[in-house]
Amino acid sequence: MAPSTPRVVVGIDVKKRPWEQLVPLHNRWHPDIPPVADVKEGELVRVEMVDWTGGRVGDNNSAEDIKSLDLTITHYLSGPLRVLDTDGKLAQPGDLLAVEICNLGPLPGDEWGYTGTFDRENGGGFLTDHFPCATKAIWYFEGIYAYSPNIPGVRFPGLTHPGIIGTAPSHDLLNIWNERERKLAETDTGSLKLCEVVHQRPLASLPTPKNCLLGKIKEGSPEWQKMANEAARTIPGRENGGNCDIKNLSRGSKVYLPVFVEGANLSTGDMHFSQGDGEVSFCGAIEMSGFLELKCEIIRGGMKEYLTPMGPTPLHVNPIFEIGPVEPRFSEWLVFEGISVDEAGQQHYLDATVAYKRAVLNAIDYLSSFGYSKEQAYILLSCCPCEGRISGIVDSPNAVATLAIPTAIFDQDIRPKTGKVPKGPKIQRSPDVIKCTYDGKLPVTKNLGGTQT
Amino acid sequence: MAPSTPRVVVGIDVKKRPWEQLVPLHNRWHPDIPPVADVKEGELVRVEMVDWTGGRVGDNNSAEDIKSLDLTITHYLSGPLRVLDTDGKLAQPGDLLAVEICNLGPLPGDEWGYTGTFDRENGGGFLTDHFPCATKAIWYFEGIYAYSPNIPGVRFPGLTHPGIIGTAPSHDLLNIWNERERKLAETDTGSLKLCEVVHQRPLASLPTPKNCLLGKIKEGSPEWQKMANEAARTIPGRENGGNCDIKNLSRGSKVYLPVFVEGANLSTGDMHFSQGDGEVSFCGAIEMSGFLELKCEIIRGGMKEYLTPMGPTPLHVNPIFEIGPVEPRFSEWLVFEGISVDEAGQQHYLDATVAYKRAVLNAIDYLSSFGYSKEQAYILLSCCPCEGRISGIVDSPNAVATLAIPTAIFDQDIRPKTGKVPKGPKIQRSPDVIKCTYDGKLPVTKNLGGTQT
Amino acid sequence: MAPSTPRVVVGIDVKKRPWEQLVPLHNRWHPDIPPVADVKEGELVRVEMVDWTGGRVGDNNSAEDIKSLDLTITHYLSGPLRVLDTDGKLAQPGDLLAVEICNLGPLPGDEWGYTGTFDRENGGGFLTDHFPCATKAIWYFEGIYAYSPNIPGVRFPGLTHPGIIGTAPSHDLLNIWNERERKLAETDTGSLKLCEVVHQRPLASLPTPKNCLLGKIKEGSPEWQKMANEAARTIPGRENGGNCDIKNLSRGSKVYLPVFVEGANLSTGDMHFSQGDGEVSFCGAIEMSGFLELKCEIIRGGMKEYLTPMGPTPLHVNPIFEIGPVEPRFSEWLVFEGISVDEAGQQHYLDATVAYKRAVLNAIDYLSSFGYSKEQAYILLSCCPCEGRISGIVDSPNAVATLAIPTAIFDQDIRPKTGKVPKGPKIQRSPDVIKCTYDGKLPVTKNLGGTQT
Amino acid sequence: MAPSTPRVVVGIDVKKRPWEQLVPLHNRWHPDIPPVADVKEGELVRVEMVDWTGGRVGDNNSAEDIKSLDLTITHYLSGPLRVLDTDGKLAQPGDLLAVEICNLGPLPGDEWGYTGTFDRENGGGFLTDHFPCATKAIWYFEGIYAYSPNIPGVRFPGLTHPGIIGTAPSHDLLNIWNERERKLAETDTGSLKLCEVVHQRPLASLPTPKNCLLGKIKEGSPEWQKMANEAARTIPGRENGGNCDIKNLSRGSKVYLPVFVEGANLSTGDMHFSQGDGEVSFCGAIEMSGFLELKCEIIRGGMKEYLTPMGPTPLHVNPIFEIGPVEPRFSEWLVFEGISVDEAGQQHYLDATVAYKRAVLNAIDYLSSFGYSKEQAYILLSCCPCEGRISGIVDSPNAVATLAIPTAIFDQDIRPKTGKVPKGPKIQRSPDVIKCTYDGKLPVTKNLGGTQT
Repeated sequence: MAPSTPRVVVGIDVKKRPWEQLVPLHNRWHPDIPPVADVKEGELVRVEMVDWTGGRVGDNNSAEDIKSLDLTITHYLSGPLRVLDTDGKLAQPGDLLAVEICNLGPLPGDEWGYTGTFDRENGGGFLTDHFPCATKAIWYFEGIYAYSPNIPGVRFPGLTHPGIIGTAPSHDLLNIWNERERKLAETDTGSLKLCEVVHQRPLASLPTPKNCLLGKIKEGSPEWQKMANEAARTIPGRENGGNCDIKNLSRGSKVYLPVFVEGANLSTGDMHFSQGDGEVSFCGAIEMSGFLELKCEIIRGGMKEYLTPMGPTPLHVNPIFEIGPVEPRFSEWLVFEGISVDEAGQQHYLDATVAYKRAVLNAIDYLSSFGYSKEQAYILLSCCPCEGRISGIVDSPNAVATLAIPTAIFDQDIRPKTGKVPKGPKIQRSPDVIKCTYDGKLPVTKNLGGTQT
Repeated sequence: MAPSTPRVVVGIDVKKRPWEQLVPLHNRWHPDIPPVADVKEGELVRVEMVDWTGGRVGDNNSAEDIKSLDLTITHYLSGPLRVLDTDGKLAQPGDLLAVEICNLGPLPGDEWGYTGTFDRENGGGFLTDHFPCATKAIWYFEGIYAYSPNIPGVRFPGLTHPGIIGTAPSHDLLNIWNERERKLAETDTGSLKLCEVVHQRPLASLPTPKNCLLGKIKEGSPEWQKMANEAARTIPGRENGGNCDIKNLSRGSKVYLPVFVEGANLSTGDMHFSQGDGEVSFCGAIEMSGFLELKCEIIRGGMKEYLTPMGPTPLHVNPIFEIGPVEPRFSEWLVFEGISVDEAGQQHYLDATVAYKRAVLNAIDYLSSFGYSKEQAYILLSCCPCEGRISGIVDSPNAVATLAIPTAIFDQDIRPKTGKVPKGPKIQRSPDVIKCTYDGKLPVTKNLGGTQT
Repeated sequence: MAPSTPRVVVGIDVKKRPWEQLVPLHNRWHPDIPPVADVKEGELVRVEMVDWTGGRVGDNNSAEDIKSLDLTITHYLSGPLRVLDTDGKLAQPGDLLAVEICNLGPLPGDEWGYTGTFDRENGGGFLTDHFPCATKAIWYFEGIYAYSPNIPGVRFPGLTHPGIIGTAPSHDLLNIWNERERKLAETDTGSLKLCEVVHQRPLASLPTPKNCLLGKIKEGSPEWQKMANEAARTIPGRENGGNCDIKNLSRGSKVYLPVFVEGANLSTGDMHFSQGDGEVSFCGAIEMSGFLELKCEIIRGGMKEYLTPMGPTPLHVNPIFEIGPVEPRFSEWLVFEGISVDEAGQQHYLDATVAYKRAVLNAIDYLSSFGYSKEQAYILLSCCPCEGRISGIVDSPNAVATLAIPTAIFDQDIRPKTGKVPKGPKIQRSPDVIKCTYDGKLPVTKNLGGTQT
Repeated sequence: MAPSTPRVVVGIDVKKRPWEQLVPLHNRWHPDIPPVADVKEGELVRVEMVDWTGGRVGDNNSAEDIKSLDLTITHYLSGPLRVLDTDGKLAQPGDLLAVEICNLGPLPGDEWGYTGTFDRENGGGFLTDHFPCATKAIWYFEGIYAYSPNIPGVRFPGLTHPGIIGTAPSHDLLNIWNERERKLAETDTGSLKLCEVVHQRPLASLPTPKNCLLGKIKEGSPEWQKMANEAARTIPGRENGGNCDIKNLSRGSKVYLPVFVEGANLSTGDMHFSQGDGEVSFCGAIEMSGFLELKCEIIRGGMKEYLTPMGPTPLHVNPIFEIGPVEPRFSEWLVFEGISVDEAGQQHYLDATVAYKRAVLNAIDYLSSFGYSKEQAYILLSCCPCEGRISGIVDSPNAVATLAIPTAIFDQDIRPKTGKVPKGPKIQRSPDVIKCTYDGKLPVTKNLGGTQT
């Protein structure tokens, strides 16, 4: 009878650098990155992966590594995997690739992770105008649970997932990406209302040969030169899935990815032990190395049958997925609300991004009255299993967004109480997250009306 | 021993018009609308309410009532209730008012509701550029379940909630609202990127005496004249709660509202039998009349203790809430993803609204391959218990939003299948929703790349 | 368009006695009790019901009513309802009757309930040898929540359900019941091992004309005389459903009942606001009057298709049911275990009843260290939404049973703690339940090894 | 900073036999079995374990290994672990040992399991009178999921747990066990009512030197001789925990075990990938080898503080546990009911064991109408995550037990349907489970009234 131990198609040695791995990694999207392995429909395979930075962030007491991180290195991906059916026929453009995430977790011997906020001048984050300093929190794992020496008093089960899973784009799709993002990058940020509220980082990260890694393609070769200049960066999620950072792509879930090139060329990386909806601090999940056990199925012609293009070409589609049955279960939630009015009191029109920013800010300040520093709260809401919802998107001019926090992750009761009942220990939660200074000159947003802060 | 039957503080006769009710209703927010009843802390009271339109939409076979609805009439609210503590001392500005929603439901004898999409020139909705016609679906209730003769093949339990619950604003807060919304309304829509994607309706609905109802204040009196010209419209959610349309404010939940005026002056209305996150079709919940049984508690000084202002004044706060324990429970979800690239293929910068629009469009088109018309799917996703999430808000330039649909509400298996397995009945789901023509001249957005549509 | 307001087929006036109700009630099972109403397949109907004692237990400060309750009066049922299909054809023996419980709850104006333990000589209960006194706790409802002045510090949402729902037995089935129960009743209790552990009450309650109520059949008439002497008592659940006391037959659930007589003759009663698995104190749910909104469907020939007889005749079948989607949701549970060794240290063979008794005793004593009296804990575990499981039934000689308590129903953290952390308020929870004396002479079981008690 | 990789305290080589393992195993409970490792409070350690038979059952196509299994070999346990606090002080009798199950799973490279039913003359099972043959089903794992080539059409996520976890008994406790079980074993089975229904296997398995393995104690030594004659067999769960087979002792749960000997001497084994409540077929979980990552905490004096003896001595206690947060989540359940009337139609008095037997039989026969053989259904209900409840235990004479099956584990809709709708594929599910013949002469129980069977 057949063993069901998954075949390791990409193994990782965490002692080695990304470019030294036996099976070469890549950190860009491009149709011509050669597959590193063939995978049969129905076969259970194991893919190991480095953390998104390939080991640049350390389990130590300094956040300088976060502050100075060169973002052109990211994200190191494992793959591509070429997918065939049981008759040996390759997945074809127009098919759907159903990928079941049968299992995943940290790499044995490397059971730790980190969450950071970038410096405002190098990466930033959703609230970078409020929190311009680079910070870092280390997390240790005890089986399903994570705890941080830098955020005492919280512990929670991981909703572990790959931040990135996607198929290779075709040349046509790659062109579409590069064109639309270049156009955006060239926009005057002054013309974008949102840039007044979500302070601008590069509007888009365009292709660059700097630190470009293309798997089996030899760095510096003419082929590499050409590809490096057109290969898409991995930061945003796109039509191929990619860095969608959907926290529910966890154990037992199934994702249906469009196939754009022969063989599908599936890549994955950026494992997260846990993440909150939005991953607000940007380096915001509990980032780690890890493994993924997956099983592929090809739905022939599935793009046409199940996906409708939402844009000018048949390539403008998005993946679909099904949620798995073993997500952590919480019954009590405390929920914060935000509306699309910014910190300056300015009214925005149905802007869910602004509304969510306000909801997150509300939650951070709330938690700070329970003994957490605001930096601790910011990092916590970025990586704990909190839920971000678009509650109302039609009641002009206000979008309403909510952020729901499971109360069971705290060692104290964080719900509001009447004055008669003591409202909790009010313990100073120290030590704090590890912090750098912010040396830039960009302005910091204050909560103008606040007297408590 | 004491009876715990709730005391009826606002009763409704559904045979009567809103302005004919024994306890007068109101449809604006204003600090000077006189309370209609006093409520003691800890006391269980019952508030009945008309549907948001006060009976203008009928259980019949025409959508003309939706098409021609005058939105200045909305929303009819019950209250205000003045809240006192057990010593008879009124709630004070700066307190938090904890309102527990102990029970709610349709009014006996009026167990039906409707969901509509407005005409593009009169109200519109999140996808009004795709769906410019007024439509209507009627829903009937069987206890906890709703079904519609206009959308055969679905039936689901209600996550019933009041669309609107809020405290009265102070004069200062009212001024802030009017000023910031007036400023937005005066903006050139051409300068707002979002208006190219979410086609503009009035950017904001400003105070107007037209159809203004102010409870005990006699229409036409000098007092009414003054108040009607400054009373805030009820459409958007704001600092006082209001029309937040949070679907999880259901049975057993608890909302913590800031108190801005003496007595708190709590009002509520716009009962929804069920609603999806976003309430995308705008007239988008299963709208009905209903009752609410609630219990108030005053947290003295709670605003300062629990809420941090997110704006230039201490009034820029938002409510907090706790989710109740009896929400419908689903284990299988099919999830659709959207990124902030619009239907024209244009890239937007971290725009969660655009991303959510694409996710909803993806879901509608998907469902249309299972026998539903797109109009049926649009209305269904507006009112069924689907969840809208902000999944990624930092991976520039793409925000990622998701829409999760519980598969158990359908009478067929709507998950993608391999070609070998029949994928369901493919029954034409008829009759369809009730439709009007669209007689305007605004352009309709097509899914440009689609060949299936 | 059609109203979906449920038609009231049995209305109750709670001011009146059971035998004074407009639509006559019954308190026995018999095929010849005449139907009180016809119900069409698919029709939503409302059935109201008295509490199981028909008002004999009062909302007052004495448990004498519990102590002296004459159990021959129970349970007062509403019905029978005769069920027809849409063509007017009656349900037939051999069909399955699918009953959907669309809604249920307390009767408006009567929102209270009680839980009691019977005197050991009059009713007893699962732990009557430990708790021989009659006691009573009063519960008040606040919408979905219940609280008791007699058990301070707990409050929980109801998993409301009818304790009794069933179809009428045929004459053959009635004979089977009477014969097998008579045989048991005649057994020498000394020969039953279990009677040493679960101290014997009448082993079975046989037919008696005393207090017999047979709906439209006039008391004292010859017909009544005959029927009263053979009509089955309502205490045990049997093949027709009946008093199965399954707490999950709640809102939105569906029960498939076998049909034994023409028309099915559905009866229901004994509404419980909440109950724990086992209903251990016997008068053990939160007993109340109430209403049920239900919808019937006839599955023609369904008994043969879906049910297999488990006994000597085709009538030896049991109902099936589906759980509804809105049960209260708890994520944290504290679980107590019991094995089939009794309080005297005697080993029993795979006896799940003995194991469950020990699990319940363990839980009661545990809770008593958090400030509750044992009587409070006994009543609480009888009526709160706790779960009783058969965990191991094969590891001879020990059956293992567990009792799981949702921790969220308490206002303190009841989990075990290390010595370093204070383990909670240790408040004396008073007032206590209302108690009577036990005047009998039967022995009381002590926890022999306990020194804490 | 400290690595959180768990320290391996017991490693297993699955290629070796139980008595050849580097760290010696044991298969009895005895206070004098020497600890194999020391474990510090708070330390994360990894314990590996063989399957309960130590490899006697093979991944092959014959059930002879099940039929001929010598049950005196079982269960092979890993440990004992001696637990110390952070000051190096040992756990003491009277303490509580809180063990958190941080993670667990199959051993890498050995990802398969089996479920069997024993021959009626060698082991039996809950329904051995109905199913006297030895049978076997093989299960393969795909990450969190299991599927069996012998039961096509089902697949489910595992609720993985150790069947056995417990502390060493003291000499006093051991004596209590041996005495009470010897007394039972000597009982005339004819005097036990239950033995007419749950056909008797040995009523209890008493100490025997046969196949006795005592860790570091050399077999055949005088010490071994003495201990082997008094060491308790591992089959039943007891006061120390042991083979409680509680399926919810899964990932993230916490069990509070009484400490009877210095150091606590924790042992564990019998890993189950999945099991239903009751583990009805006896070899009834998905049996496998596996690992457990756990963390211990000592609650000093916890037995006195948290446990109350339920028997003649302070040793008559039971463990407590808390359920973990990542159990598989199901929303739809089909529930079968049983009452304490046996297959011969005989009435039993409040016998939960008989009631549960009938519920399980009802479920098996039901499933057999959906294409499964009864043997497949029996094994499935033994190992899938179904829930067994004690619903009513006071309504004399009938106990009511229920068995709830999550419908999502099937690839077809198994709910009852009206005649108009096809009720599913009715596919013959083959191949069937692997079967042996039953060569004994004990009678087989038939469902007497059944015509379908």
